[in-house]
Amino acid sequence: MINDIRQLTSKPLGLFGGQKPLGVVGGMGSFATAKFLEVLARKSRAERDQDHIPFICLSAPNIADRSKAIAIGSDAPLRQILERTYWLEKTGCGAIAIPCNTAHLWANEIKGALSVKLIDMVEITRKAIESSCGSEARNLRSISLGTSASIRNGLYAWPYDGDFGNEYRRNSHHIQHTATKIIDAVKSGNMAYAHNALAALIQSIRSIGFDTIVLGCSELSAICGDLSNDADIIDPIDILADACIDWWATEGRSPPDISAARSQGEKR
Amino acid sequence: MINDIRQLTSKPLGLFGGQKPLGVVGGMGSFATAKFLEVLARKSRAERDQDHIPFICLSAPNIADRSKAIAIGSDAPLRQILERTYWLEKTGCGAIAIPCNTAHLWANEIKGALSVKLIDMVEITRKAIESSCGSEARNLRSISLGTSASIRNGLYAWPYDGDFGNEYRRNSHHIQHTATKIIDAVKSGNMAYAHNALAALIQSIRSIGFDTIVLGCSELSAICGDLSNDADIIDPIDILADACIDWWATEGRSPPDISAARSQGEKR
Repeated sequence: MINDIRQLTSKPLGLFGGQKPLGVVGGMGSFATAKFLEVLARKSRAERDQDHIPFICLSAPNIADRSKAIAIGSDAPLRQILERTYWLEKTGCGAIAIPCNTAHLWANEIKGALSVKLIDMVEITRKAIESSCGSEARNLRSISLGTSASIRNGLYAWPYDGDFGNEYRRNSHHIQHTATKIIDAVKSGNMAYAHNALAALIQSIRSIGFDTIVLGCSELSAICGDLSNDADIIDPIDILADACIDWWATEGRSPPDISAARSQGEKR
Repeated sequence: MINDIRQLTSKPLGLFGGQKPLGVVGGMGSFATAKFLEVLARKSRAERDQDHIPFICLSAPNIADRSKAIAIGSDAPLRQILERTYWLEKTGCGAIAIPCNTAHLWANEIKGALSVKLIDMVEITRKAIESSCGSEARNLRSISLGTSASIRNGLYAWPYDGDFGNEYRRNSHHIQHTATKIIDAVKSGNMAYAHNALAALIQSIRSIGFDTIVLGCSELSAICGDLSNDADIIDPIDILADACIDWWATEGRSPPDISAARSQGEKR
């Protein structure tokens, strides 16, 4: 039996019954990766183990610090992220998810380099916010919490062109400082502090008067708990999980021959 | 840059800086896998993303139902589990963890077939209980909650040869029925019910008078929350995470040349 199986597994797709698994680039950071996989399992609403979405999660966390690299104009992390996405592509994954917002500053470069789909967390989150606002989207007073790199580079910046007022100006530095502190606390495992500090930060932001608060760093998603149930909180990890489930239902789970036949008949 | 990276990733170990990642067989079930990865991240006590344990998690959940297979004397799941462990071995993983207790009914077969180490969750859990009891280990009144296959096949059965009394005999069927119901509830995502039912079950077992209660199914670990903080609750997923961290610290993180030199000087 053993030699037989060794032969079988030289074709990794055999493990997935011919279906193409989801590829997950983990380790940015490790708590956020675990949280994403938990949300993916929960939202899949599968009744049995066998009905859950197959995935390969590659967590090689020795990727250069994204925020520091961007601050000095380096794209060292991009190279490492591409190495991981290529590896997942090569092992037969049908789409790639990266549960890290900051990494999406390079989303276009990653998409351009891959032959499979990157399920772009930032793009789908922006679309989800837009479609929930309808014609009022432009006037939305939206704030994003995230790494300094994400915020400075406007990852979730909104086209609202009004003024956020004096109270925001007085507090904007403190908000970024606190968000960075919470993200670092999650990365070092100080979850109770991080959760309480995020709850307090959200309360103080609400008093300034924003319509939506985007948890624009997956470390915040990892510890938000019930906070993300409030209507004004947008959790990109939640939206990414939904999009992965949609991908799986419409493209991933179909055996390759059916996908091929369908892709000839419609533009994907 | 792209061709260059494509070439690099034909050697997957390059992604891990020459270190050998942990291989995780996921999907039995998907919530338990996510919980294990969360505990692994938490217990690693890493300060930065880059210091977390590198891993490849292969979640191809289309593995035949373990309990049903064992009930009819089939080893179909073993074949599928071996396919997954071989694949992880082939991609360069230095040790394998399987966060599923029932799968450990085949631990000896899996160990015999692998050339890398299986970090045997059941073996290390039994050792952890034994070493915490000292010379009193034999008299320990220990009960395990798990799938019917695990319980019937004595996965965590203890050598205690006394009588558990009439109250246990009257309740043993109800305990197994309730444990199975909770495990199924977790697999289908009914977490709030599962957590409350587990808390109630633990309370009723305590009233019978056991020294330890082993959460002998990773679905129970996935939803136990703070229940596992009590001194009489043994959580194998917690113990598995500790053992994986020990493995990483002593064997996994050393570059291959250092490992080789060391293994000549000491019996591993």
